[in-house]
Amino acid sequence: MKFEQALPALEWLRGYSRGSLINDGLAAIIVTIMLIPQSLAYALLAGLPAEMGLYASILPLIAYALFGSSRTLSVGPVAVASLMTASAVGAVASQGVVDYASAATLLALLGGLMLMAMGLLKFGFVSHFLSQPVVSGFITASAIIIALGQLGPLLGIALKGATLPSLGHDLYMQLREAHTLTIAVGAGSVAFLLLARYRLSSLLGALGLRGRPAELIVRSAPVLVMAVLIPLSAAMSFESAGVPLVGQIPSGLPAFSAPNISWLLIQELALPAFLIALIGFIESVSVGKTLGAKRRQRIDPDQELIGLGAANTAAAISGGFPVTGGFSRSVVNFDAGAETQMASVLAALGIALAAVLLTPMLYFLPKAVLAATILVAVISLIDFGTIALARRYRAADFWAVVITITVTLLAGVEMGVLSGVGASVGLHLYHTSRPHFAVVGQVPESEHYRNVERHDVMTDPHILSMRIDESLYFANAAYLEDMVFAQAALREDLLHVILMCPAVNAIDLSALEALEEINTRLKENKVALHLSEVKGPVMDTLQRSNFLTHLSGEIFLSHHSAVMALRAKETADPALT
Amino acid sequence: MKFEQALPALEWLRGYSRGSLINDGLAAIIVTIMLIPQSLAYALLAGLPAEMGLYASILPLIAYALFGSSRTLSVGPVAVASLMTASAVGAVASQGVVDYASAATLLALLGGLMLMAMGLLKFGFVSHFLSQPVVSGFITASAIIIALGQLGPLLGIALKGATLPSLGHDLYMQLREAHTLTIAVGAGSVAFLLLARYRLSSLLGALGLRGRPAELIVRSAPVLVMAVLIPLSAAMSFESAGVPLVGQIPSGLPAFSAPNISWLLIQELALPAFLIALIGFIESVSVGKTLGAKRRQRIDPDQELIGLGAANTAAAISGGFPVTGGFSRSVVNFDAGAETQMASVLAALGIALAAVLLTPMLYFLPKAVLAATILVAVISLIDFGTIALARRYRAADFWAVVITITVTLLAGVEMGVLSGVGASVGLHLYHTSRPHFAVVGQVPESEHYRNVERHDVMTDPHILSMRIDESLYFANAAYLEDMVFAQAALREDLLHVILMCPAVNAIDLSALEALEEINTRLKENKVALHLSEVKGPVMDTLQRSNFLTHLSGEIFLSHHSAVMALRAKETADPALT
Repeated sequence: MKFEQALPALEWLRGYSRGSLINDGLAAIIVTIMLIPQSLAYALLAGLPAEMGLYASILPLIAYALFGSSRTLSVGPVAVASLMTASAVGAVASQGVVDYASAATLLALLGGLMLMAMGLLKFGFVSHFLSQPVVSGFITASAIIIALGQLGPLLGIALKGATLPSLGHDLYMQLREAHTLTIAVGAGSVAFLLLARYRLSSLLGALGLRGRPAELIVRSAPVLVMAVLIPLSAAMSFESAGVPLVGQIPSGLPAFSAPNISWLLIQELALPAFLIALIGFIESVSVGKTLGAKRRQRIDPDQELIGLGAANTAAAISGGFPVTGGFSRSVVNFDAGAETQMASVLAALGIALAAVLLTPMLYFLPKAVLAATILVAVISLIDFGTIALARRYRAADFWAVVITITVTLLAGVEMGVLSGVGASVGLHLYHTSRPHFAVVGQVPESEHYRNVERHDVMTDPHILSMRIDESLYFANAAYLEDMVFAQAALREDLLHVILMCPAVNAIDLSALEALEEINTRLKENKVALHLSEVKGPVMDTLQRSNFLTHLSGEIFLSHHSAVMALRAKETADPALT
Repeated sequence: MKFEQALPALEWLRGYSRGSLINDGLAAIIVTIMLIPQSLAYALLAGLPAEMGLYASILPLIAYALFGSSRTLSVGPVAVASLMTASAVGAVASQGVVDYASAATLLALLGGLMLMAMGLLKFGFVSHFLSQPVVSGFITASAIIIALGQLGPLLGIALKGATLPSLGHDLYMQLREAHTLTIAVGAGSVAFLLLARYRLSSLLGALGLRGRPAELIVRSAPVLVMAVLIPLSAAMSFESAGVPLVGQIPSGLPAFSAPNISWLLIQELALPAFLIALIGFIESVSVGKTLGAKRRQRIDPDQELIGLGAANTAAAISGGFPVTGGFSRSVVNFDAGAETQMASVLAALGIALAAVLLTPMLYFLPKAVLAATILVAVISLIDFGTIALARRYRAADFWAVVITITVTLLAGVEMGVLSGVGASVGLHLYHTSRPHFAVVGQVPESEHYRNVERHDVMTDPHILSMRIDESLYFANAAYLEDMVFAQAALREDLLHVILMCPAVNAIDLSALEALEEINTRLKENKVALHLSEVKGPVMDTLQRSNFLTHLSGEIFLSHHSAVMALRAKETADPALT
């Protein structure tokens, strides 16, 4: 491997121009302003101290800038991964094995190492097993859980758990304890952020403000809310009024440290780490591809694994928690004019500056403000469009998305992803386990053979022609046997069965066994088995078994030649007719 | 459902003749003689008191006789299910949750209820997900573990665990403690049983003894060993010499009782119960089909689930443990001339008689004799032929069998089955995730299109024709995108991409998304996307989405008409050429 391939940053660093620096710098300012409240908020969502959000937005950005293959992807804490972190960390921390922060850091380390290993082994294909309905349903369900969970800080009550039933139970039990001033702060923040998100652009446009300055103002909305509410909270002593505040945050940069590792903890966290890493990778690649396509820049999924792996490892050694390429932050970065990953490096410097200078001020920040930031950010992730499309399109896809959403809402994120993958793989196997087999007949005066149920075709009482519309493998081998015997049983004068295989792309060992069984049992009934239109690669594998020597009939290149040859045989041997 | 369908026994009971009764009766005698030592031995293999083996061979046989669909299948304790029972029961019993016997009984109950539920829901297809290499590899590995485990009682030492490393470790640590007299008893029994199995038939034949009498003698070998060694053991007081004996067995029939049920235990045992039931079902159906085919009797897999479910439930309420249709016992039953399940009913009576009359004598039976019975029975299950065949045939099948055997040997039966299923499903998905896509060209002076790499064909610089040799779904959707863009990037003057879909049997939502993406990106590059030879059912699903309205090109019935139409368009609009 060439050095440059391992370090994609070298490509854009060479010949990096002043123009690019200006563009990247301006994008970095917008992204930094957006990231400060978001980082703090997602750390709280993950059940961690707020400063860990800042730490997860410094070194990981630089690591991705060096090793990632996307020019404009922006990594850091994101909503769904933070919810998954909360769930995984909560499970081990509640057992008293370890504190939340150490578990979250170990989660980032494990995920980072797994991603890098997958990248080096070119195992990116594993992510393809998560189907689009599963990913889409999972994100929608997670967003619903996150949004509902924010009702806790917005109402000033403590909602535990990350499933619909537990959130509902807590909400019901504590609703009376809701804190009026906290509600006022939260509702005000949500209202302002919603207005900023959906109206401010057009308002600024009407005032003649467009482009980057307008963008900067719109993206500053969360910081503006903070800028208004921190002094307000300090002046009106929200703290003594009972409004939950962010409180003391250590000032300065994170200390480098090796995560707290124990074998027991690794066993407990391996699966969640893998799922967080995989979902994060899928989200990143999807964002990276979308943005890359707009500028004709290619995303290399295997390099992307290494980039994200490096980012998570960097998070682990600098006091952070799992990070990934976020959709909204990357779009903001792209729209703000970022040309290269230099924008992310500069944003990291911005966050580092914030960690050093701003932390004392954050003491007075009401948590409700951060909850409002999360709420407004995640509602755009809720997308019922896929359910509607899947419902219209295909039952298997519909069930995959419904199962994923239902299990995620009721049993949590891990069970949700696993059930979704199980459902989509299971449904796919089920679907191909009862493939379409058509009894075919000859279209008059042609060499074409079509389904007897759909077309007016000619058949021969001595010959059963069946077209198999699927590769033959373990899940459908038994079904093939059943179908052939069922059709053969309907025909008293049967002498030949021809399986027409133009759509058979593979025959595995279980299916070979089934074909042997069909051959043997037909032979016992004095019926010969033939195959027609067998593809080259399939023929190659069959030749490596003994099937062809056992086969009572022949292999024909075209189905028509098979029928002609077998008819000619009957005429030559009238005893058979 | 008709009453007779629910109770297949009614079919053969009606018009049951005296001749059948004689045949069934003689078969029952042979099977009973074979079953007495086997039942005791498999109970010990499962880590249970010996009498549970007898109990599992009474009521379950009658339950299967009523509800099962095979005329000659013989159910009862079998080697592999007993090993799996030992593993599952050992895991919960070692935690002190419950005693071994209660756990084994609950295992039978759970498995029985699951099988019946699957039968009523017609969920037999679930068993198709266990591919032939996985089942075959699993049985071979289990047989190796069982055979090695018998070295414990044969040497008079205590081997715990059911994996190669733990057996090896125990064997190494205790080899010095091996007990000479026990070894002599064990080695003598093994030698006699091997001789009986592989030589006695031909010896008796040379003496002019053939048919059923000869069969009876051969099958009596294990009982003969018992008949010799029980008096010997009593007379020479093997017990005080330190030979481990079967010891006190309660005399009489099992008491009916409801199994000891707790929610915690059910959670722990649900997965092993399911795996034992599933493996047992697969073994039964495979034996039943083989025997049924010889007499043109049909096996109904869904009825078979109900029959095996009833047998296991019967085992649970009468003090037994998981049972299934065994290969060797069913073949013996069949070969001995059994015509109907009346043979099993009579064999059950024979075992019941043994439980009442013989148990006092079993006190002096050396455990080494039972171990010898198991050892000689399971070595015939070890079959490396499948590995060799799979190796020659197809890499995916080879890896599935190797992974199953390796994991079963090293990590035990449950992990072995699960890894095997995971591997075969994973390999199948991996295989179809990188399907064969061929760039095709026109065979000169024909309407056929073939792979440009294999044939001498004509291509057009403006048209890229790609044939897709697989259904499109989530696992290969990303690969399709990559392939199309990679091929499109090689052609500077490209105007049209035609995807030829004769082997595409389905397009799921993830693949639809990929096609939308391909369409969009090609359109941005002023290239039109067309499809040809789309199958009816696939076209039906596509029409339920918006893809056809977004599609920049057209859908053509035949690939040739697509190429002709697009060429005609170019000629009509010379600006494009």
